[in-house]
Amino acid sequence: MTTKNKTLAELAAMVGAEITGAPDLVISGLAELSSAGNSEITFLVKASRVAALDHCRAAAVIVPMAVTTAPLPLLRVKNPYLAAAAIQNWFQAKPFSGTGISTMAHIGNDCQLPAAISIGPMAVLGDRVIIGERVTIGAGAVIGDDVHIGDDCLIHANVTIYQGCRLGSRIIIHSGTVIGCDGFGFATDEKGCHLKWPHVGIVRIDDDVEIGSCVTIDRATFGETRIRQGARLDNLIQIAHNVVVGENSVLAAQVGIAGSSTLGRNVVLGGQVGINGHIHLADRTMVAAKSGVANNTDKADVISGFPAIQHRDWLKAATIFARLPQFYKEFRELKEKVAKIYQELFKDEQNG
Amino acid sequence: MTTKNKTLAELAAMVGAEITGAPDLVISGLAELSSAGNSEITFLVKASRVAALDHCRAAAVIVPMAVTTAPLPLLRVKNPYLAAAAIQNWFQAKPFSGTGISTMAHIGNDCQLPAAISIGPMAVLGDRVIIGERVTIGAGAVIGDDVHIGDDCLIHANVTIYQGCRLGSRIIIHSGTVIGCDGFGFATDEKGCHLKWPHVGIVRIDDDVEIGSCVTIDRATFGETRIRQGARLDNLIQIAHNVVVGENSVLAAQVGIAGSSTLGRNVVLGGQVGINGHIHLADRTMVAAKSGVANNTDKADVISGFPAIQHRDWLKAATIFARLPQFYKEFRELKEKVAKIYQELFKDEQNG
Amino acid sequence: MTTKNKTLAELAAMVGAEITGAPDLVISGLAELSSAGNSEITFLVKASRVAALDHCRAAAVIVPMAVTTAPLPLLRVKNPYLAAAAIQNWFQAKPFSGTGISTMAHIGNDCQLPAAISIGPMAVLGDRVIIGERVTIGAGAVIGDDVHIGDDCLIHANVTIYQGCRLGSRIIIHSGTVIGCDGFGFATDEKGCHLKWPHVGIVRIDDDVEIGSCVTIDRATFGETRIRQGARLDNLIQIAHNVVVGENSVLAAQVGIAGSSTLGRNVVLGGQVGINGHIHLADRTMVAAKSGVANNTDKADVISGFPAIQHRDWLKAATIFARLPQFYKEFRELKEKVAKIYQELFKDEQNG
Repeated sequence: MTTKNKTLAELAAMVGAEITGAPDLVISGLAELSSAGNSEITFLVKASRVAALDHCRAAAVIVPMAVTTAPLPLLRVKNPYLAAAAIQNWFQAKPFSGTGISTMAHIGNDCQLPAAISIGPMAVLGDRVIIGERVTIGAGAVIGDDVHIGDDCLIHANVTIYQGCRLGSRIIIHSGTVIGCDGFGFATDEKGCHLKWPHVGIVRIDDDVEIGSCVTIDRATFGETRIRQGARLDNLIQIAHNVVVGENSVLAAQVGIAGSSTLGRNVVLGGQVGINGHIHLADRTMVAAKSGVANNTDKADVISGFPAIQHRDWLKAATIFARLPQFYKEFRELKEKVAKIYQELFKDEQNG
Repeated sequence: MTTKNKTLAELAAMVGAEITGAPDLVISGLAELSSAGNSEITFLVKASRVAALDHCRAAAVIVPMAVTTAPLPLLRVKNPYLAAAAIQNWFQAKPFSGTGISTMAHIGNDCQLPAAISIGPMAVLGDRVIIGERVTIGAGAVIGDDVHIGDDCLIHANVTIYQGCRLGSRIIIHSGTVIGCDGFGFATDEKGCHLKWPHVGIVRIDDDVEIGSCVTIDRATFGETRIRQGARLDNLIQIAHNVVVGENSVLAAQVGIAGSSTLGRNVVLGGQVGINGHIHLADRTMVAAKSGVANNTDKADVISGFPAIQHRDWLKAATIFARLPQFYKEFRELKEKVAKIYQELFKDEQNG
Repeated sequence: MTTKNKTLAELAAMVGAEITGAPDLVISGLAELSSAGNSEITFLVKASRVAALDHCRAAAVIVPMAVTTAPLPLLRVKNPYLAAAAIQNWFQAKPFSGTGISTMAHIGNDCQLPAAISIGPMAVLGDRVIIGERVTIGAGAVIGDDVHIGDDCLIHANVTIYQGCRLGSRIIIHSGTVIGCDGFGFATDEKGCHLKWPHVGIVRIDDDVEIGSCVTIDRATFGETRIRQGARLDNLIQIAHNVVVGENSVLAAQVGIAGSSTLGRNVVLGGQVGINGHIHLADRTMVAAKSGVANNTDKADVISGFPAIQHRDWLKAATIFARLPQFYKEFRELKEKVAKIYQELFKDEQNG
């Protein structure tokens, strides 16, 4: 790998930072605070932890604006984590170098493939697949008939995309993920036997989406299951038929969303959250890990538990849950005390 | 795709419907209520929503018996959802057109494969695999040695079936699913090190089962892990070694069943449910989403929560859980009140 | 398959057992109690169930030391389950018979592969892959550039290992599993858009680890995600970036561990457990199924629930949870009683 370099001044310009220290200092990479070496830049997310810089061997450090002095050159920014990500992206970026179509791949009939493409060994494209510029299809990936993929997508090894699905541009899909399998739909007869509903819809994924590994996104019964622009899906997530995931929504690992539910923009779902079918979560709804959401939210609430309630209420309820044995014991004591009082107070009546 | 047509009378005969309207009306497809066009039939599941038909542009509509008049021709049936599924299956059905064995597939030794078969590119069959008529093996699927597959099965791309497993007929398995991997069995020595138990059993899947994507079904330690006829498994489900899933049981996404547990017929498990090992759920047991079942059920109960209790009890308990902070506050107030009473009542004694 | 045989005396020596019965009895396999035939040995885990031996047709049985007599020859040991596993491993073990590199596999440039190797059809190795002795790479598995794999590993079909990951020796990885995909890391700008963090770290898996099917293990942001020696991971588990799973830890199916958390040695996580990010679980911590762990443990506690508390406390609290409706009813009755008392006691004051 050839080393890339930028001066501190160039990096500052890239992220809109104020420099403290030598602007012509040459930086050759970004590393974390504990391991950054003397040609690398590092970053400090919280001003309160500025003492960590005392033993840092980095060449420079990206810090929040609140940090004004330190033993090493600074790039002062509003959001150090965001600035560091931008700088790391620059250092790690490589120009697309299409390796072409492997002789060990299988390409169906009537596909439209650009010259700038990488299709790995054992990848399989069905018929009439249309792929944009600078796309990589990993080894062993299977792309069904009539799938369209935009520009600059990265489909990792062993991904499966069923027929007819539509992908925008700048999408990343990690290995083992399955896009467009049949939804879990069937009708049940009087004997309890299930008749499959054919799923004639598709999955549509908009630009700038990243999807983790072993995610399953079902095609729609009719119409589309939709992942909107900029959404981030972690690993092992289940998206049922006809679900809509809103712009820039963030779904942590092992989330499951039941059929026909819709998420607004910038919804955040913690790990292992379950969302009931046919509900809607308002923009910026946040759901804590492991919660189960049974009903709509109509504003940007933070909710928890199952069934999910306001997070602050759940925290209090969960605290009392842990004390229930003690609570119940005190209740029984109180009950006895009241019984004693009652007896004392009404003994004359009782005796009378 | 060539268009298929049926008259309203033919469709009525197919699903045992009573016709209101022109029996010779030609129908060329089925669509949902909001999008059906003037040559398509649609369906209305609930009679109470009959007003939705006023703006419907469909040629005809499948309705429950309770609906007797409407602005468009009707097929009146007991179960509109079931009738619609049957009709949609007819419209979507395509005769099996075997594409044969891809020249880019790998077929092991001594396999028995019929002429009517489709084996996709990069599919791999081990030795002594036996496959029935009209089976499709998707691209990149790997079928281990000595696997037997019945007739009319559809094994999607990138499925993996380990050696020796047995599949019946009319089975659908979606991409990324793994059948017959080793069960999670080991013995632990005095130092805390684990010795793997070799799993010499298999997985047996009966006729008419559909299994979603990225499902894992472990082979038995001895004997068989069994999925019985007509069962439906959604995506990302874990079935441990020696589990039995009963006839027509329905498992929603992300369910996990621990080792040696058995489900009766028509058991329904909601999303993200966990079932303890070595228990049995009676026929028609229903478990609400996210529940954890620790013990046997002996009749067709509806259960919820963790550990699961009767669903109606859980609903009440969950309601009070949400109010625990208020409940506890009221309790403390009552306690103070009682203390005051106690003091008042026994002040003479105390003073005495 | 050729039959293997050992005398009872040889098996006794293998597992340090005391023999009751003919030492020269020839045993040709191990089976479970209900199905073992007259040339097979079986095993009884609990002395209390010794009556089960009355109808057993096995040639001999491995029993706990507490069992001293039985209708058939005995191997008496401290831990019958462990002894049976050892004996079953001996019966099932096969010498490695490398099939070499399939002509339908793809091998990248500058790989180092030994003569004793099995690489299945449609397997893909990137460039500079280094593999040890007696390794099997299953059909359709994809091994990225610069991956190193030690000796005696078994990588099942359709596994994906991303570039640069490091695997030790005697590791088993089941189908559909993805090792080294990008962690779920991004920085969010003021408009709510997410900027991907490039993940430059790797996954390192130590010796003697077994990993189930459809498991996802993310590579580190920097440095390593680490699975330490002897750990056992069941199916459908999520391991986030920079997590450390300690020696001999056992993770049941569908567990999720969020970023940067670390497990000590011999930690046990039940099915569907979720572990918060940036926490540490002490050696031998046990977490009951479905729990969510929000905070560190500092000793070998057994914990349950969400947020997890001591298991014995959780059991009591869960019992009272189920009775909350009755508890609340009793509380309201008590409240009314106290109101009545209060009124009675202070009626003079009130009237006064």
